[in-house]
Formats: sequence, C-alpha cells, structure tokens
Amino acid sequence: MFFASDNWAGAHPLIAESLVKAATGYSAPYGEGEIDRRVERKLSDIFERDVKVFFVGTGTAANALSLASVAKPASVIFCHPKAHVTHEGGAVEMMTNGGKLVPVRPSGAGASKMDAASLKAAISPYLSTDASIGNRTAFTLSQATEAGTVYTVEEIAELSAVAHASGLKVHMDGARFSNAVAALGVTPAEMTWKAGIDILSLGGTKNGCWCAEAIVFFNPDDAAALPVLRKRAGHLFSKSTFISAQFERWLESDLWLELARHANQMGDKLAAAIRASKDLRLAWETGTNQQFAIMTDEKAAKIRASGATFHDWPAPEGFDGLGEGEKIRRLIACYATTQTDIDQLVAQF
Amino acid sequence: MFFASDNWAGAHPLIAESLVKAATGYSAPYGEGEIDRRVERKLSDIFERDVKVFFVGTGTAANALSLASVAKPASVIFCHPKAHVTHEGGAVEMMTNGGKLVPVRPSGAGASKMDAASLKAAISPYLSTDASIGNRTAFTLSQATEAGTVYTVEEIAELSAVAHASGLKVHMDGARFSNAVAALGVTPAEMTWKAGIDILSLGGTKNGCWCAEAIVFFNPDDAAALPVLRKRAGHLFSKSTFISAQFERWLESDLWLELARHANQMGDKLAAAIRASKDLRLAWETGTNQQFAIMTDEKAAKIRASGATFHDWPAPEGFDGLGEGEKIRRLIACYATTQTDIDQLVAQF
Amino acid sequence: MFFASDNWAGAHPLIAESLVKAATGYSAPYGEGEIDRRVERKLSDIFERDVKVFFVGTGTAANALSLASVAKPASVIFCHPKAHVTHEGGAVEMMTNGGKLVPVRPSGAGASKMDAASLKAAISPYLSTDASIGNRTAFTLSQATEAGTVYTVEEIAELSAVAHASGLKVHMDGARFSNAVAALGVTPAEMTWKAGIDILSLGGTKNGCWCAEAIVFFNPDDAAALPVLRKRAGHLFSKSTFISAQFERWLESDLWLELARHANQMGDKLAAAIRASKDLRLAWETGTNQQFAIMTDEKAAKIRASGATFHDWPAPEGFDGLGEGEKIRRLIACYATTQTDIDQLVAQF
Amino acid sequence: MFFASDNWAGAHPLIAESLVKAATGYSAPYGEGEIDRRVERKLSDIFERDVKVFFVGTGTAANALSLASVAKPASVIFCHPKAHVTHEGGAVEMMTNGGKLVPVRPSGAGASKMDAASLKAAISPYLSTDASIGNRTAFTLSQATEAGTVYTVEEIAELSAVAHASGLKVHMDGARFSNAVAALGVTPAEMTWKAGIDILSLGGTKNGCWCAEAIVFFNPDDAAALPVLRKRAGHLFSKSTFISAQFERWLESDLWLELARHANQMGDKLAAAIRASKDLRLAWETGTNQQFAIMTDEKAAKIRASGATFHDWPAPEGFDGLGEGEKIRRLIACYATTQTDIDQLVAQF
Repeated sequence: MFFASDNWAGAHPLIAESLVKAATGYSAPYGEGEIDRRVERKLSDIFERDVKVFFVGTGTAANALSLASVAKPASVIFCHPKAHVTHEGGAVEMMTNGGKLVPVRPSGAGASKMDAASLKAAISPYLSTDASIGNRTAFTLSQATEAGTVYTVEEIAELSAVAHASGLKVHMDGARFSNAVAALGVTPAEMTWKAGIDILSLGGTKNGCWCAEAIVFFNPDDAAALPVLRKRAGHLFSKSTFISAQFERWLESDLWLELARHANQMGDKLAAAIRASKDLRLAWETGTNQQFAIMTDEKAAKIRASGATFHDWPAPEGFDGLGEGEKIRRLIACYATTQTDIDQLVAQF
Repeated sequence: MFFASDNWAGAHPLIAESLVKAATGYSAPYGEGEIDRRVERKLSDIFERDVKVFFVGTGTAANALSLASVAKPASVIFCHPKAHVTHEGGAVEMMTNGGKLVPVRPSGAGASKMDAASLKAAISPYLSTDASIGNRTAFTLSQATEAGTVYTVEEIAELSAVAHASGLKVHMDGARFSNAVAALGVTPAEMTWKAGIDILSLGGTKNGCWCAEAIVFFNPDDAAALPVLRKRAGHLFSKSTFISAQFERWLESDLWLELARHANQMGDKLAAAIRASKDLRLAWETGTNQQFAIMTDEKAAKIRASGATFHDWPAPEGFDGLGEGEKIRRLIACYATTQTDIDQLVAQF
Repeated sequence: MFFASDNWAGAHPLIAESLVKAATGYSAPYGEGEIDRRVERKLSDIFERDVKVFFVGTGTAANALSLASVAKPASVIFCHPKAHVTHEGGAVEMMTNGGKLVPVRPSGAGASKMDAASLKAAISPYLSTDASIGNRTAFTLSQATEAGTVYTVEEIAELSAVAHASGLKVHMDGARFSNAVAALGVTPAEMTWKAGIDILSLGGTKNGCWCAEAIVFFNPDDAAALPVLRKRAGHLFSKSTFISAQFERWLESDLWLELARHANQMGDKLAAAIRASKDLRLAWETGTNQQFAIMTDEKAAKIRASGATFHDWPAPEGFDGLGEGEKIRRLIACYATTQTDIDQLVAQF
Repeated sequence: MFFASDNWAGAHPLIAESLVKAATGYSAPYGEGEIDRRVERKLSDIFERDVKVFFVGTGTAANALSLASVAKPASVIFCHPKAHVTHEGGAVEMMTNGGKLVPVRPSGAGASKMDAASLKAAISPYLSTDASIGNRTAFTLSQATEAGTVYTVEEIAELSAVAHASGLKVHMDGARFSNAVAALGVTPAEMTWKAGIDILSLGGTKNGCWCAEAIVFFNPDDAAALPVLRKRAGHLFSKSTFISAQFERWLESDLWLELARHANQMGDKLAAAIRASKDLRLAWETGTNQQFAIMTDEKAAKIRASGATFHDWPAPEGFDGLGEGEKIRRLIACYATTQTDIDQLVAQF
C-alpha cells in the first residue's frame, strides 16, 4: 500500500521490456541515435507542431534547464510560492546563474493555482528598467499542480497572455502532464502551445517510466543555448537511447494516456472513499491521482500501522479547514496502483 | 563494426534483465531504497573500506560533482591538458562556481600522463596566499587515461603524495576504471585509496551499463556537501533504483571485471592486427580497450567504406610520429565487441 | 532642495580634504597600507572588540560579500521582503552562487521591521535536512530600515537569538548605521555584536563620504573566505587608501556621529512640518533622516514644481492609510541638508 | 624610492583637487549625473566615435564585466597565459558564470605578446559545434602588456582579424592604455576600434587617478547586458561622480597623456641606467614605464637595503637569459616618479 508518491513504483513492464529490446546493438550516442530522432518526430505528431526535444533524467533538470535556456543576467522568474521549482535544492537558481524565483499570490482550491490578476500584480514591480530590478524572463506553472489540481485551458491561456504581454517566456512543469491531459480530456496541443506555453518539462518518470523526462520547445529559437547548457550540467547522456526507448514505448498506442487515466481513476476511488469515511474528509477536490485527506494524527497512525505509506502535507497559507489535532495527508495513486491496494487502504478509513 | 566509442553499445543482457526484475514493486526513492543501500555495502566490500556512494547518470556529473564537493571560492584544479574534464562543456567550471582547470605538462606514451615533477611545477605558482591566486583545491587524473594508457599504482601514489603535500584533494576519473583494474591486475583498493585517491568517479556506462555512474568517497567527510550539490544539479534520481539495480548486477560475480577483461582482450587483438598490418602502426601502446592507429586518410576512408566507425584523434602536442597524409585514429573495443567484429575490421587493415 | 536620497550629495569638505592629504606619497596597495591598518584599529576601538575590516566601494558589494562569506551550496538567507538586498540586481544571488532570499513576514511601523515570531515561522520549513531544501545560512536585517525606522537593541537581540538557534549567521545592512546609532543613543557595540550581530556592512557613503563602505567581521573566523571573494568580485582596490582615508577622517572626532545627528535633526524638522501641514501627514514615524509623507499627486506636483526632488514610495503591503489620489512620498535629509533647504521645501507644504 | 608598482602612488594633485571641487553640491546618482555624461561625450571625442561608457572602480571589475557582457553559457575566452585576467582571483570565471580562459602560445620580447598564427592555433579546437566544447566568445589582449611591451597597431589589427573571423569579440585590457598610446605615438582611435577592438578597459588608476576605470564599448549593442551585470556585481556606484570627476580632469588638456609620457620617460631613464650598469642588464626592451632588469639576489638585496621597493618577476617560459643566482626584477615608474627617485635608485646600480 504505497501512496507516498508516484515515484516509488519501478517501471511499467512494457517500458522495461522496451529497454531490453533496445539494449542489443549499437546506437549513435548523445541524442543522435535512431530512437532519439523517432521520438522527437512522434512528439511532433502528438503536439501537432514541429517541436525540438531534449532528453534529461530528472524533472529538476528539465525545469532548471528549461528556465536556464531563456535566462539573462539576474533573471526574475515568476511562479507559485509552493511550486516544485522552489524545492529543488536551488537548481533553478544555480542553472540560471543566480536567478530569483518571485512568488505569485496563490488562489483556488488548496491555494494551488495562480490567476491572471495576481500574476499581473507580481510582475508589476519588475517592469522597471532600473538595473537593480534585474531582468524579468519567465513564468512557470505546474500542470497538474503540486496539490493535484488542474488549470483549465482557458486559465492557462489567460496566464500566458499576461506573461507574454510583459515579455516573459512561459514554461509548464509537466511532471504530471499526462494526469492533467487525462483529467481535462483535451489534446496535448490545446493544453500547451495553443494556450501559450513556450517550453514544457514533459515527465514520464511519475507515470510508468524509470527515468524519462524531456524538455519540449515549441519555438525552436528558444532552444539555441540548450545543447551547451545541458552538457555543462552533466545531463547529456551518452546512451540517450535508454531514455528515448522508454519514451517510445510510453508514447506508443497512447500507453501514457492509458496509464494516466488509470492513475486518475484510482485517485477518484480514493476520493470517493475519503468522502464516504466518517473520520476523513477531502481538503479540496483535485480530479487527478493526488488526493488530500484531512485526518487526525491518531487516525493517520492507525492507517500507517496497517502498512500504508503516505506523507503529511503542510496546510496552504490561509487554509482554515483543520480541526483540533488534524492535518492534511497526501495520498497518491500511480500507474501501478491496483484495486486491491485501494481496497486494503480504504478498509482502514 | 562499431569502434567509435565504448558508449555506442546499449547494455549487457544481464544488466537489462536486472532492470526488468527491479521494475516490479515499490522502492523508497532518492537513494534510500534497499538496492541503493546494498550496492553501497557491496562497494565497501570491493574497496575494503567503508565508502560513501552517490549515484548519478553521467560521467560528466560524477566528475563535476566530485570536484564541486571539495571546491572553495575561485578553486584551482590541476589536470592533464586533455583530460575529459576539460571537454565537458564547462561542467566543472559551472559546478565549482567558476573554478579554473590548470594544465599539468603531460608526459609518457602519447603524452597521456602526468608525473610528479610536472605536477609539482604546475602547483608551484599557486602556493601563494595572495587573493589573486584563488584557492588551490584538487588534482584529478583519469585512469585509464583518455589515450588508453594506465598509470601504475606507484605513479598514482607519487602524484597523490605531491597533491596532498600541497593540501589538494585527489580525484580519479574512473570512466574506464574497470579497464584499468583489469589491465593492471591490482585490487580496486590498491588502485585508489591505498594510492592516495580521495574521490572516485566510478563508471559503469562504458562497460556494460545503460547509465550507471557513482561518486565514491573514501573519506566520508569530503561528502558533506554532496547531497545538496547533487540535488541542485538535478542529479538526484527519484527512482535511483534504476541506477543501483544496474550496478548491483554489474558488481555481482565480478561481471564488471569480466566485461573489462573482454574489452581489453579485444583491444589487444586490435593492437596485434595493427602491428601486423603493413599500412598501419600503433601510435603508442595502451594495454586496454582503446587503441590508436596511425594511417593515411586514404586508408581510413577505405576501412570506413567497409562499414567501420571510428574517430580521428588529434596528435598530442609534440608528437612527431606522423608521416605525410597520416593521422591518428582511435579504435575502441567494448564489452560487446565480438571476435567477428574484430575479424571484419581487421580484414580491412 | 534635494530630498531624493542621501546619495546625491558629494562628500563632506573634511573628507574631501582628507583625500587631498592622502593623495601625496606612496602606500602599499591592496589594503596593506598604513591608513588601512589604522582604520581597522580605530574600528576595533569604536566597537570595543578586535574586528576584521575589509573596504569595498558600494553597499551592494558589502552586503553581497558579507553574505557570500558564510554561504554554502544552495544557501537560504532570510530577510525583510523589501530589504535592500532584494533590490540589488541579483548581487546576493550571484555572489552566493545562487542563494535564495526568503522573505520574513514584516511588521511594525510601515511594515518595515521583522519580529522574532515571524522569523521563526520563516525559518521553520528550512530546518529539514532534505537536500531539496538547500542550506540555511544567514539572516540579514537593515538598521536603520529602508523605511527609516530603527530596531531597538532588544529587538535585534531577539532576532539574533532566533537566527543563531537555527545555526544562522546574522548580518546587519548598515548603509544607514550612523543614523541608527544617533537615533538610539546607544554604542556601536551595543547595537551590533552585543546584540548578536556577526557581520556588519558599515556605510559611510550615505553619510558624508564619496564612496566608503566596510565589511566588519566581529568573529574573524567568518572572514576566512573574504579575501578571495572580494578579489574575485573585483572589489579589492589597489589604492585602498582612497577608501580608508575617507573613513579615517569620518571616524575622527566622531564626525560620523555628528553628521548623522545633523541628518536626523533635519529629518525631525521635516517630520514636524509634515505634521503641521494641513495637506500632508506622516505615513509612519521614523526618528531618523528619512521621512514618509502622504500627499496627493496634485500636491506632490506642486512641491516638485518648486524645484524639490523626492521619490514616490510604494505603499507597504496591507497599508490602509491612503485616501483617494494619495501616495506615499519619501523625503530624505542628509549630512549636507541645511536649514535653508528645509525652509524652502516646507514653504511648499 | 617606490618602484614596486604603478599603484602605490596616491593621486595626482590636479585629480585630488578636482574631487574637492566636485564634492560640493548634489548630483543625480548611479551614472546619471552631469559630469558622468560629460565624460562620456569627452571620450567620444577622444575616440572619434560615439562610445558607451561605464565607470567602475577596479581594473579587475572592468575586465571581468567587459568579458561578461559578451559571455554565453560555457564561454571560452582566449588570452595570453600570463594575462592579468588569469590572476584576478577567478573574477572572469565568476562573472562569466564559469567561463574558461584558454591560453594562446606567447611570443615576442619576454614572451609577452601573442601573434596571429598562435591565436589561430588556439582557437582551432574550439570551432566545433559540439556541446562539450562550449561557446567561444572573446579574445583579450593587454596593451601595454604585463611585461611592459607594446603591440603595434598592425599587430593588434592582425589579431583582431583572426578573432573576428572566428566570431570572437575583441577586448583590450588597457590598465596601462595611456602608456601604450604615449609609447606608440598613435591616436586612441587607431589603437582601438580602428584596429578591431570592440571593448576597452580604460585605466586611470595606474596613471594618476585614485580609482577610476571605465569600460568603453565601441559598439553600443555589446553593452546591452552591462547595466544589470554591473549592478549585480556591486560595481554601480551611487556617487559615480567621484569617478567621473577624476576622469574629467584626467582627460582635460591631455593630462593623461602628459602623465603617461612622463612615466615612460622615467622608464627610459631606468632602462638606460640598467644598460649602463656592469651588474645589471635588461631582460628585454619595453619602451614604457615598466622595466625588467636581470640581477643577482645579492645585488637586489643591496639595492633594496637602500630603501628601494620592487618585485621579483618570474622568468617567462623558455627564457634562457639567466645566469647562476640571477633573477628578473621588475622596476616600475609612474606619473609621480621624480628624477630624484631615479637618481637615488640608479646610484645603487
């Protein structure tokens, strides 16, 4: 009963098999192999546009290098105050050579999102050309968010419009991109460049891969610095085929979407059980694989005693839904979660 | 007939299988899983000492993070002028926040090595405490070297002694560590900490793994900064088991040594065939899987026309063994090279 | 009628004269000259403790190098959300190699200060040893604050105690150190190391010097990295006597304190006139040379039309004292401000 | 008898006076003052072209910021192996965020210069587009050189042509720019942009100023990043007038040239006396204010015992002009050196 994160499962059997197949034979290294090129073409198909793709091994690398690719000296980057990029050991700060992450006042369920007005307000003091202000460069949002919620396509488009109007590039942290696409029922293109996204961190790791992340540039010009930035950061894999081979199988026959739908459905089941429990209640609705349940320490201890793993989750600023002795707990389903896992967990609710 | 590098082959079948096995089930992420811990213990056995191990995905990351772990402001790091660390897109320079790689005058076969006297001479101007000099911090050597040669244990010990006498930490770039151990017939301990090595980049990728590199600290104190440095650089893999599972099989039953011996033997066969050819000759002797043959452009074109891949290699400074129209060509065997590959290639000599 | 900032005046005649005197003759460069050493001894007297002093040319350099001297990889530094260090073009971020400035919730007059409880709350999420959190390293406060207010010695001691309890070093941005000492009527020692300050940016520029800033270390051990950090940042002046000669005269016969008292008195007169005006009112009380007046745009335009220079000042978050069409305007007196300047300005109130 | 460097003297009386005059009154800060603008116009006159000028306080800042202004990720910068930029505590490396200084094989008197062929050879391995190579960005030369010699205008033009042909920007470290102009008898324009220089570090400090350095951009486009880079590095002076006021007087009535001519003449006298001495000889000819004399330790000790200060100078690589017990000693004259100083020193020869 592993509900601590969607990065505890190993890899989907079909992905693992794909690696076995690719292990034989030789391939040009450093992203120049056959499979690497095929996956770039496949992603261009999926996104309905010629994209430029760079494989990396972690979401942190994908995010930090995405933002570094559009950085200037003293970059200012706008983000949610609890965005994953703020908790990556200073990766963005280092790879942008001292960039600054400026928080946008959060809003929405679980204070998990940002809206156009608050983004505009956050940008406003940075419109000056005064050297002490630095250079505003980018806006980044997570889709799905760190709190399991999902921006609508319209919300993304509004945020992108505000960012673009101030000369910012727009980056999407898509560590859980598939869960969001599955939840919204839109196309990848609709959720990204058609809504103003310039650069995407596309995550496979949390949805069935071992270790497969890609930086997807919708405007090839933005990618000019990336090859050197990636090599400099030690993220150019010689045997890049081990990443592209995972992606190839992941993208084949919409496996990525199938796995995400499954994870989301397992999330729905969790939500239903939380709603049904007399001791638990949902902190907020998500619609994806991540669920946030309010429960007492006593209850949490009892559930954990049954063998279930899950993490406590800090209450969002201003959250007033907690009673005496209660905390929010995050329960994450993933591609590998089974009905049995759910049943065993829910039996403790 | 792939002789361009030892990073073109995919992964050894036993390694690929090991990943299939590990793909099932759940594991604590971020280096805290069972297999991660087991591999650290296994490496402690192999090195006859308690070592601290950090998994990363590339040799560039291993080298740059190793040197960053002992960096100070304005670090000065001594190395061979053609060391791999000088050709990694500025990785060491970035991860050490502007460290400087200072070349040591090379010597030996193919000008591939450094000796104690030249290291001492290189360090000498940096012994001053003048702020304009920066802070000398480390010495790094590659074993096997980029030119296929191998330092003897005594040579390593002499270099380490000079470095330590000046307060430098000693790092070994072991991208081809296994080939060197196999060539020398010594123990891993003898070739490293017993000879003064403080930090090792241990490479599995060029010898049968997909993507498995480890930073091995022989003195745990040197590792204090590493966890944050690694996370900050985006090299902390959530599913670190992906790397440790490769290492576990690689280390089991001395597979790593068996594969390295095989690669070296294939290298020996190449060397023998080069010596026997009337059109080719060895630029220098190596004793490992890398061979360097002198041949004319015409001859190289003819061999390539048969389907063989290999790279030209810049002549070392001061190398005077080249005739009119001749160049050095690097031919690399690896764990996957077969007798048939050799036969087909050699037939063109 | 220059009230825009305390960095518009040139230099006090006695300081300028001191430079003329020092211009003749020769002096060992790079901080090793006679005057350099004398000033360090003088500061040790003034602070009643052996201090280590480094001269630099700007407050930005003093602040960023102070914080860099205690930085670790992925440094986390706590500060007021509007602290000057957040508006220095990313200087702290660069010199700490990607450090992060984390805001502490402000409080007090003009939301200009921080208190122990809010500092504790800000630090709390950074107590984890998780690598994604980075390394907490320092707390910095400005005295006087950017909004003209002054921490009491007790407040400083409480904040320092919280910071030290979490292993943070405490830095004081003393760009207006003299104004604060003058306002509080305490000794320099009482306001600094006796209240827990570890490192001080001591500013002479805003109080009569051309360009004279010093980093004062109360614990010499903290200064170990500073010589290289300063040289690396281009802030080691060859003719450092240029700075120390300014400081020498500034410190002689308490000129620094006399000038600060004068500037504060001029500030008091401004405050009195604002209070007395029917069209203006004080946004908050300061007690130093900086005053913040609320007035309409129309009124501001009229005053400016008379030749007075001053800046608008963004209302602090949550400030609710503004009526329709009103803004806060900052009026700064300095060592050079005369009664005539005040009279001319106040005539427009 | 101070011959240790040209940065031991304070400031020329006319410069010091100019500062006294500018000390009165108010001026817009941060480079926006009247005098700042006047000096930029004056430099445009002197260079016969509209130049963009940024004042900084040290030569290290001028050099590092000049090179940072044209940096890219993993910058590669070509320079003389003993160029001053290689001895500035890693300033270039930090401000370019990990740039690499690649040495060009030296040639000429005292191995103090570089020629077009060796520059071409140094650039050659960096023409690849391979990410591991980084981005070549600039070439920097010192005029006068660190060994007192001077490039002819033709030599500069040849070097610039090679650099430009490879897409490099060309920077001149003009810490001793005036000495070089005086020695060559050419115009500032001829020695800079007319010979291909893009960016100049113009040094006043070593020739009569307290602390006055300027970055001069001959192509305004190259300066786009400079304002933020300078602020970020803490080199934007609030009271920038203290630098521009020095420059204004320095440039008035060709004072700069007069002082440089004087220093060079004093250098000539030193050279003549060295040639005439039976115990000393010139290591090489310079034609500027820096002279390099070969003498025994015994002789050096005797001269120093008379009160003279000067430094030993490491023999250039390959220099074979030293006899038993001999070393090279650097003797520097400056704007303040008098005939009496020379007489007293020479009496010991």
